Amino acid sequence: MSNQLKGACIIGQSGGPTAVINASAYGVIKTALESESITKVYGAAHGIKGVLNDKLYDMGQEDAYELSLLLHTPSSELGSCRYKMKDPDEDDRDYKRILEIFQKYNVRYFFYNGGNDAMDTCSKISRFMDKSGWECRVMGVPKTIDNDLYGTDHCPGFASAAKYIATTCMEVSKDSTVYDNGQITIVEIMGRHAGWLAASSKLAEHFGAGPDLIYLPEVDFEMGQFLKDVQKIYDEKGKVLVAVSEGIHYADGVFVSEAKTSATDGFGHAQLGGLASLLARIVKEETGAKVRGIELSLLQRCGAHLASQTDVDEAFLAGKVAVEAAVNGETGKMVAFEREMVDGKYHCATKLLPLSAVANFEKKIPVEWITPEKNQVTDDFIDYALPLIQGDPVIPKEHALPRYARLKKVLAE
Amino acid sequence: MSNQLKGACIIGQSGGPTAVINASAYGVIKTALESESITKVYGAAHGIKGVLNDKLYDMGQEDAYELSLLLHTPSSELGSCRYKMKDPDEDDRDYKRILEIFQKYNVRYFFYNGGNDAMDTCSKISRFMDKSGWECRVMGVPKTIDNDLYGTDHCPGFASAAKYIATTCMEVSKDSTVYDNGQITIVEIMGRHAGWLAASSKLAEHFGAGPDLIYLPEVDFEMGQFLKDVQKIYDEKGKVLVAVSEGIHYADGVFVSEAKTSATDGFGHAQLGGLASLLARIVKEETGAKVRGIELSLLQRCGAHLASQTDVDEAFLAGKVAVEAAVNGETGKMVAFEREMVDGKYHCATKLLPLSAVANFEKKIPVEWITPEKNQVTDDFIDYALPLIQGDPVIPKEHALPRYARLKKVLAE
Repeated sequence: MSNQLKGACIIGQSGGPTAVINASAYGVIKTALESESITKVYGAAHGIKGVLNDKLYDMGQEDAYELSLLLHTPSSELGSCRYKMKDPDEDDRDYKRILEIFQKYNVRYFFYNGGNDAMDTCSKISRFMDKSGWECRVMGVPKTIDNDLYGTDHCPGFASAAKYIATTCMEVSKDSTVYDNGQITIVEIMGRHAGWLAASSKLAEHFGAGPDLIYLPEVDFEMGQFLKDVQKIYDEKGKVLVAVSEGIHYADGVFVSEAKTSATDGFGHAQLGGLASLLARIVKEETGAKVRGIELSLLQRCGAHLASQTDVDEAFLAGKVAVEAAVNGETGKMVAFEREMVDGKYHCATKLLPLSAVANFEKKIPVEWITPEKNQVTDDFIDYALPLIQGDPVIPKEHALPRYARLKKVLAE
Repeated sequence: MSNQLKGACIIGQSGGPTAVINASAYGVIKTALESESITKVYGAAHGIKGVLNDKLYDMGQEDAYELSLLLHTPSSELGSCRYKMKDPDEDDRDYKRILEIFQKYNVRYFFYNGGNDAMDTCSKISRFMDKSGWECRVMGVPKTIDNDLYGTDHCPGFASAAKYIATTCMEVSKDSTVYDNGQITIVEIMGRHAGWLAASSKLAEHFGAGPDLIYLPEVDFEMGQFLKDVQKIYDEKGKVLVAVSEGIHYADGVFVSEAKTSATDGFGHAQLGGLASLLARIVKEETGAKVRGIELSLLQRCGAHLASQTDVDEAFLAGKVAVEAAVNGETGKMVAFEREMVDGKYHCATKLLPLSAVANFEKKIPVEWITPEKNQVTDDFIDYALPLIQGDPVIPKEHALPRYARLKKVLAE
């Protein structure tokens, strides 16, 4: 493989949005626009679907200031998709179409910004291009609030969501303890298979205003024990704040949110109001206390106003490093993070991992970070997460509201 | 009434918490501690219940820096209550007890920080003290995110909630439009009888990222028309963001959240998941689209991290003015705000209103600010609300999380 490769690049965004996925896109776009090897920078509308549909934006026509606002604009500004690529050995039509578009625009660099599925897409495209003989360097840029990507210390997007969750739990804790007549509050936090986000509520507890109980999907959930845990704290303090991961499940693997439990009247609450309101109803029936369920919903993943500057910086870095590495000859890799302590201070280094080693694996919270009672996390989690949420970005505002990037999105022809 | 009155004061907090109610408490406490007429400053634990239970904190024993952190500590730090005082002509036992406590601690000033109910309490206590011959100056300090207090241009607490709602709607708008396969998002906002909070989502729309439709309790809700409105925008744009006030109701006055509608299967969804999930389900059945309901829940009223500095300043001012006015001889009044334009700039002046003229009236959004279609508000609302949300407080932090006041709460004896 020659190191010198001149041509256009495409950046695409995939999967659920985060507060900082656009910071990664900006890292790619800015570095690519400044690179001598990269002749044109295209943004794919709605990820790989934009490539398949020949819908590419010419990022070179954007105003530099507007592009810089991507650092603080939540969600996926280029549009996202959830599109699972078929195995090319079974059905290679999508891949042939991608090759056609790559050839049409002389695309020699492809950057894909997403989670597990995106890395899988990246990996498949990379192998197909290798086989087809069209030289194109393919790099994955990690993103997921779930923090479950394999091989990286953490993922861009996680820390900002964690900071949002911790701050919000502190505020809810303050609010829900204001009366003297008892209150149980149950906060539902994202994370279908890994509990990193729900565990982040622990950061609030560390500062004296967080959940008394935390339930994660890494361990089996037992409704009877849960009700006992809540009752015990309610009896002691009169107030209980509970954080639950949306992915908590019984020993048989069935999600609590989908199961019909004996404490309900059996017509499937879960689909109506979500896990928080299901649990709130059961706890209310059991304890007779005032109970409120709160679902943090989309708010936790798009809360750019509470982003971590560390996360913004690292998200940008991931995009930048992907471009630099590709220009230097790398392909088929994902940018990953390695935690280093320099003079006792947290420092984030980058490394490259083969896409094939990342795609389709999930990283979960170490079981030893979960207390034996399965209802709290240990201080190990705080040591892990606290450096990641540091720093408050200075967010450009207009009339006291955030000023998001306004891109022209001129279609390439 | 002599202007010179020396004695202790009590500050109490009542009703639902806000992001800035503690800023008002700090306005009272700081000004009272500095006043020569006020000998002791007591904080009542859980509002008037703290007086009845003889549970008063000696605020003079608090550290000055910790007290100053009340400016950015959400919720009611002294504790709150929802306690409706009886009419003293029917049952004066509570009032006699209050008099007993006032005499025990030589309380000559009583400041009560709350909404409609608090002003009613204030008004009754004020009249009882007058009749009893115990000279005590009673002042109401306004507070309510609902913004429905009569006679004041706006209420401390509203603007910070409005800013939270607008910012969150901008973020949700970004997040919910990220895929190209259609999405309807319904955001449920507080406000049982007045639509000020739900209307605040309009501030986001003004900046290009807000609700397509807004439904308020000031007008009757029609489910059929609502579904037509949503369908129309969905057909045009493929994406719809809807803001609804929790207090929307049918023409017969029944809350939508409590009614069983023909589009449901009649087993009372409302009690299970709230209005947002009820509407989401109905819209999903009707349109077949992907629909998500989001309830902003407690988050909107305790979001101190997104407070308006204008609101913080005015909340403090309300407390300060209450003490100054009382020391100067006023009693039986509530501090209210008057909007002035000075050199074309918003300025907030204070005035005093008789408590009897404020208690038990509700201020609603002028009907002419609601569009004839009853599904949006006009720019009049933006002109009204925008000056109130200006300014971002610099919030003291510890490890990137807010540093709340830690009071000693030493009980008075």
